[in-house]
Amino acid sequence: MTEDAHARLRQELADLHGALVEAALVVWTAGNVSARAGGGHFLIKPSGVPYGDLTPESMVLCDLDGNPVEGQQLKPSSDVFAHAYVYRHRPDIGGVVHTHSTYATAWAARNEPIPCVLTAMADEFGGEIPVGPFALIGGEDIGKGIVETLESHRSPAVLMRNHGVFTIGDTPRSAVKAAVMCEDVARTVHLSRQLGEPFPMEQPDIDRLYDRYQNAYGQ
Amino acid sequence: MTEDAHARLRQELADLHGALVEAALVVWTAGNVSARAGGGHFLIKPSGVPYGDLTPESMVLCDLDGNPVEGQQLKPSSDVFAHAYVYRHRPDIGGVVHTHSTYATAWAARNEPIPCVLTAMADEFGGEIPVGPFALIGGEDIGKGIVETLESHRSPAVLMRNHGVFTIGDTPRSAVKAAVMCEDVARTVHLSRQLGEPFPMEQPDIDRLYDRYQNAYGQ
Amino acid sequence: MTEDAHARLRQELADLHGALVEAALVVWTAGNVSARAGGGHFLIKPSGVPYGDLTPESMVLCDLDGNPVEGQQLKPSSDVFAHAYVYRHRPDIGGVVHTHSTYATAWAARNEPIPCVLTAMADEFGGEIPVGPFALIGGEDIGKGIVETLESHRSPAVLMRNHGVFTIGDTPRSAVKAAVMCEDVARTVHLSRQLGEPFPMEQPDIDRLYDRYQNAYGQ
Amino acid sequence: MTEDAHARLRQELADLHGALVEAALVVWTAGNVSARAGGGHFLIKPSGVPYGDLTPESMVLCDLDGNPVEGQQLKPSSDVFAHAYVYRHRPDIGGVVHTHSTYATAWAARNEPIPCVLTAMADEFGGEIPVGPFALIGGEDIGKGIVETLESHRSPAVLMRNHGVFTIGDTPRSAVKAAVMCEDVARTVHLSRQLGEPFPMEQPDIDRLYDRYQNAYGQ
Repeated sequence: MTEDAHARLRQELADLHGALVEAALVVWTAGNVSARAGGGHFLIKPSGVPYGDLTPESMVLCDLDGNPVEGQQLKPSSDVFAHAYVYRHRPDIGGVVHTHSTYATAWAARNEPIPCVLTAMADEFGGEIPVGPFALIGGEDIGKGIVETLESHRSPAVLMRNHGVFTIGDTPRSAVKAAVMCEDVARTVHLSRQLGEPFPMEQPDIDRLYDRYQNAYGQ
Repeated sequence: MTEDAHARLRQELADLHGALVEAALVVWTAGNVSARAGGGHFLIKPSGVPYGDLTPESMVLCDLDGNPVEGQQLKPSSDVFAHAYVYRHRPDIGGVVHTHSTYATAWAARNEPIPCVLTAMADEFGGEIPVGPFALIGGEDIGKGIVETLESHRSPAVLMRNHGVFTIGDTPRSAVKAAVMCEDVARTVHLSRQLGEPFPMEQPDIDRLYDRYQNAYGQ
Repeated sequence: MTEDAHARLRQELADLHGALVEAALVVWTAGNVSARAGGGHFLIKPSGVPYGDLTPESMVLCDLDGNPVEGQQLKPSSDVFAHAYVYRHRPDIGGVVHTHSTYATAWAARNEPIPCVLTAMADEFGGEIPVGPFALIGGEDIGKGIVETLESHRSPAVLMRNHGVFTIGDTPRSAVKAAVMCEDVARTVHLSRQLGEPFPMEQPDIDRLYDRYQNAYGQ
Repeated sequence: MTEDAHARLRQELADLHGALVEAALVVWTAGNVSARAGGGHFLIKPSGVPYGDLTPESMVLCDLDGNPVEGQQLKPSSDVFAHAYVYRHRPDIGGVVHTHSTYATAWAARNEPIPCVLTAMADEFGGEIPVGPFALIGGEDIGKGIVETLESHRSPAVLMRNHGVFTIGDTPRSAVKAAVMCEDVARTVHLSRQLGEPFPMEQPDIDRLYDRYQNAYGQ
């Protein structure tokens, strides 16, 4: 990756943190976005820095073990090892997002997957949004939980039990999109369930919607 | 339609997409507004473009079969065929809006119409907001479901099962208004129902309110 | 009232409509504020005009029967007769506000008063927020319902059944404050009730809080 | 404290009131932040002043009995005695925040502590957020309720019954953070509980998370 491309990626990553704030998925310093940077590295939010203070330069370049490379100004997010695990085990993944977005985390706290009862959910997630195991921060457990849970699902989002949401994408932007859509459908299905049972969708319809959205939607 | 009128309509349509964002009825690239453009054409949002990137020029001019006319920069919304169907079968309609607005879509996911228990709902919708059938995107099914469901209702809004909201209006602006009011009453009636049964309204009162609002309200 | 005082009141009234928007108590063109203008007149929002288009000059000067005085640019709000009734029967009142704010209207739709279970509610409302009768717009019924219901309550807010909120104040600003606080406590008590019964407050405590807030709070 | 340090503290306190507004924890004039100012004094919001009108100069310097020192422009918040009590009995505390934030106050109205079922809650609060007694404003009762309730909890937040939230911190900023996080977890656990029982967390996991967050998080 050229120095220019690196600078652009730092800028994009700073902007994507702004998108989390705008979508009201994060409060104070919680949550983070990372971006694969090439050459066995990725960039990630610094630990405990308020969103309003983030700059392209404050993003922390780490190796795939989650260790910051020499010369970084700040310590990386304490979720760095979860992100690193995902990049090591999923070479197809270019971006990872973590939030405690309210409605999705409410499902996670009940250890309950979000059932696929909306066409928008079939489009983006291709089925339910699953729940991963409870895991403590700081080692490989969260990363392992993410990767193993998503292996058996089309969903780019996983609800980590009693914790929050992790999403993945081929780019950091698509991971942010998954985080936005995850909260949106978590909220809608939550509200729908408050007053009764949502009408189930048929699997072949879910499959058709997913296929079209992944292959024909957009420009 | 003169070139000037066309340019103004493109501008208005871009502005109305902004109104959807401001009213928090849409996230990311979901949702769209279209406007009948005269001469057997209509303008509609391009597919998969973020709201912040929409410009008057990016709106896609289509014929009434939903095919973009020559020279358009972008592909139209994948909901284009639903909009086209409405324009072909309802010559009185000048604008169509589609959203997945949260509370309205929660009712749609339960396949449950919103009962008319608010004077503001009697004013704008003249009765319940009905639910249309489940229908897959891409053909005539959604458009047919919208038109057939609204035939037997005064409501300019229909909740498509497991999907979201479509609204119609004599102008694109009145269709946007219906989308805003639909979410507003969907939310209020939802909340009211959470703690008991809303007090029913009498049909003659609904009729009087609807008549006054349609004929005497405004300037 | 001097011409200058009149101009200032028009400006204040326009600003207070902005405060309703900022507090998210209104959507599209619904809701209105009025201000007693002296000389047997009051100023009120014009009918069906979007909040973003309101100017001091667009406010409509009416007599206490709700008829606009000569030379007004626009038709007054269709709620004008309810406001007029309040000004005729309550000479102590200097401002009236009407909204369909979501949580308060959800209580109104169930015909259920909001019980006083918060110190902030004791402060501002001195007890429950009562529900007034169902009444059709356009005549004296709404105004009569407001005045008669509030006669037996300390509350400056009344929930009109299946309709929305009216608040009164010695100034238009205090009526707007009552509308803001009404929605705030309506929401908090609603949420509290969703998961059980709020702890009751003792009447003597409510009395003491109300007395202190009305007499010692502020500058 | 030098005059410069004093001026900076006034500015910081004005900014932190803005943070309460931005986080939507307060409406109209409710809520307040105070900051220990050294020399047996603290600064606090003036009573009944709208958030938009607050300036560094409007903050009121009080002694530790809650009496404003000579020369203050405005009367202090009517919660001044609660803040004063905390500063007198907790020399480790540098800031106190009071809000009626919606979800937290909904728990307070039910007299129900918020159970620790989220990792973010273990991080910041180290266990449940407790409920303190009902107490009338104006004397020592609220302050005493805060200090005594927090003695037996790690939580920097306490829900005062039928009232609202008080939070404490070594700095005013950390007290504001606790107020923001308190509402965030109050909302998430509320929503989770609406559709079932949240999955319980084990005490040793809560302990480990709390220890790490207090000692290793941030820069």
